[in-house]
Amino acid sequence: MRIEVICTGDEVLTGKTVNTNFAHITQKLEEVGLAVKWETTVGDERDELLLAFQLAGGRADAVIVNGGLGPTVDDLSQEIAARAAGVELVLNEAWLARMEAYFARRSRAMPPTNRKQAMLPAGAELLDNPIGTACGFALDIGRAHFYFTPGVPRELRCMLESEIVPRLLARQGAASAIHLKRFHCFGIGESRADALLAGTADGVPDGTVKLGFRAHYPQLEVKLAARGRDMDDIGHKLAPVEAAVRRRLGNHVVAEDERTLEGVVLEALAAHAATLCTVEMFTGGQLAARLAHLPGAARILRRGTVAPELDEAFAAVGLERAAAGERVTLASSLAVARAARRQAGTTHALAVLVALDEGAERADFAGTVCLAIAAADVVVTRRAHLVGGRDWVRLGAVELALDCLRRHLQGLPVAERIDFETIDDR
Amino acid sequence: MRIEVICTGDEVLTGKTVNTNFAHITQKLEEVGLAVKWETTVGDERDELLLAFQLAGGRADAVIVNGGLGPTVDDLSQEIAARAAGVELVLNEAWLARMEAYFARRSRAMPPTNRKQAMLPAGAELLDNPIGTACGFALDIGRAHFYFTPGVPRELRCMLESEIVPRLLARQGAASAIHLKRFHCFGIGESRADALLAGTADGVPDGTVKLGFRAHYPQLEVKLAARGRDMDDIGHKLAPVEAAVRRRLGNHVVAEDERTLEGVVLEALAAHAATLCTVEMFTGGQLAARLAHLPGAARILRRGTVAPELDEAFAAVGLERAAAGERVTLASSLAVARAARRQAGTTHALAVLVALDEGAERADFAGTVCLAIAAADVVVTRRAHLVGGRDWVRLGAVELALDCLRRHLQGLPVAERIDFETIDDR
Repeated sequence: MRIEVICTGDEVLTGKTVNTNFAHITQKLEEVGLAVKWETTVGDERDELLLAFQLAGGRADAVIVNGGLGPTVDDLSQEIAARAAGVELVLNEAWLARMEAYFARRSRAMPPTNRKQAMLPAGAELLDNPIGTACGFALDIGRAHFYFTPGVPRELRCMLESEIVPRLLARQGAASAIHLKRFHCFGIGESRADALLAGTADGVPDGTVKLGFRAHYPQLEVKLAARGRDMDDIGHKLAPVEAAVRRRLGNHVVAEDERTLEGVVLEALAAHAATLCTVEMFTGGQLAARLAHLPGAARILRRGTVAPELDEAFAAVGLERAAAGERVTLASSLAVARAARRQAGTTHALAVLVALDEGAERADFAGTVCLAIAAADVVVTRRAHLVGGRDWVRLGAVELALDCLRRHLQGLPVAERIDFETIDDR
Repeated sequence: MRIEVICTGDEVLTGKTVNTNFAHITQKLEEVGLAVKWETTVGDERDELLLAFQLAGGRADAVIVNGGLGPTVDDLSQEIAARAAGVELVLNEAWLARMEAYFARRSRAMPPTNRKQAMLPAGAELLDNPIGTACGFALDIGRAHFYFTPGVPRELRCMLESEIVPRLLARQGAASAIHLKRFHCFGIGESRADALLAGTADGVPDGTVKLGFRAHYPQLEVKLAARGRDMDDIGHKLAPVEAAVRRRLGNHVVAEDERTLEGVVLEALAAHAATLCTVEMFTGGQLAARLAHLPGAARILRRGTVAPELDEAFAAVGLERAAAGERVTLASSLAVARAARRQAGTTHALAVLVALDEGAERADFAGTVCLAIAAADVVVTRRAHLVGGRDWVRLGAVELALDCLRRHLQGLPVAERIDFETIDDR
């Protein structure tokens, strides 16, 4: 099945909006084993839209069109779809009633311009939009079946998942249920993960579980895209593969599905009835910021301290200022963590000190992270040498700090080697 | 002149990479008065590439192709360009020599696969790439003139600006020099800026200075895109418009061109030989993080403190804990700023306290920002009520704090009303 996507709208064509909708559509299809072959972007112009619909209608089996379903005069998708299919626009009474109810719930009268959104090409199948006034619709143009979707990202996402992907899979005669299982990893690169996981999905019949990766330093996302008759069928197929992935990736899996590393850390702290303070050098507030915005964080992250140098970090936590020339070491980070814990009165303290290379930014600019966790009856330290420029070291230091705290709270080894660290041979 | 863009590559077609290159190309052209009419994305497949080149070559006057110029087997742009134009690939000796020199400078032998990058369609014009091994080239296919560019974003940007935009402008018979003047504003919405600036560019002949906006809360970017014979000509045209824009936007302009608000704040602190400490509630480290990563920040931002509640903010700066039920006020933020300044031994302290609505996230969730700046002989306070959800309040509070510090350091009124604040009628 040849699938094409047409994105419409001056905002996207002029680059005012970066086209994330297309990336979302093609990723979602990829995850269920459908491939997009061609994408076209055109503006809000009748001639260009018509030509785009005609060309895709002559080439593809299925076409997803995004945008142009709004109430304003520059939203042209229904009109041009009807023209391309050679049919009239007719009022869809059911959708008009839905829109009127939508406005009534908000104690507003429906503006007359919105009526346009219920005008669909004759013969089109309505695609539900439970969260907006732009309904989608499906229609044949040329030899292809077209699916028209709204430009508002959350409305598109909802319609794609509940209305369009199932129809595409059904058209292809494929299984009708789909599920994406995700593992968020830290400390493991894509090539090593690829080698570690080779063959994990091979036992599943018909390739209905597909392994994929998405690297976005410092994390790696490992994805299992599964198809089946229904969710039970998928569950049976996925269970052994999931187990194998967890076993092989081991402690490098920091969170699964919608969860995040910082969320897992916060939950683990809450489960221990713990409170936390942080002291960070070089990461400059980014560590605290990862946790502070989460719901419930205010009761747990009680204090964060940012200091540019060892001297200031010592002073900020009430230690005597470091002697001139004293260096960032595990011992100094431990002293800072202990003092910070005492000062803030928290159950846990996390100190992240970084010794940086001197000089200008460069590709092999390095930093040595010395971090310490202090709790009532235990202290933990971790040292890692990261190479790759200032931002690379900063991102890695924040992630390493959160991951070490996670490992400590979950009773896992804190000092497990990660792929991003190198031997510091100085 | 009808311009089309073709983006190539499986990474973009599968959504693994969001297509920011296209947004960059079309924005850059828009800024010099050239409009892109159509965009096509295809993967690394011979048949699809050929069809895309043929279709665009039959429709457009100029086509920019992005990607596919690398050394690996899936980079197909030269091969398919030659086939579409009906010519052979020939070795460009000059580019081969450039590549060999490139590797020699890095003390490496050129891998044999890179030779492919010097194979260009016969008759093509070479487009220089001073920062990479993928040269671009220009070639006629059908009725259109094609420009082939590398997929690496910084190489594309460089080639677009220095090689392609001037050629497109020359083809159009337009002025050959271009310049984009940018004003970064805070506290002013797009519609008010639009009204304030109406007519500013009208005095310039031939519409060669074009006004544009790009809103990305909390900032608004105001752009003047100018074209002329040369930079002198542009300078003459721009000067009065620039002056009018500065006068009308007044203190809301926080930085110009490549400069940023945080960079301006840091420079102003350096100019005063000042040092700074910050105390932040709710913004959770984001304020410190905006400054801390900048070159030279370590000597100026000496300490940052993050506290989730008033009580903790008081304790962190060495004040007696706030009485139970004490509220965030200008008086409490002032007390915190003064104590923090004393404690950290800095010349300036900036405290940002936020009183939030209770309950769940919602569109009209509000926060009242109370911020204070303490210096040796002066204190400044500012209160603002922001409405729009937790993230909106958080972003606004960080920006407001940086902007108030900028205004204070530059001797401007700190309490000027901004478009994002509302009257708190509680």
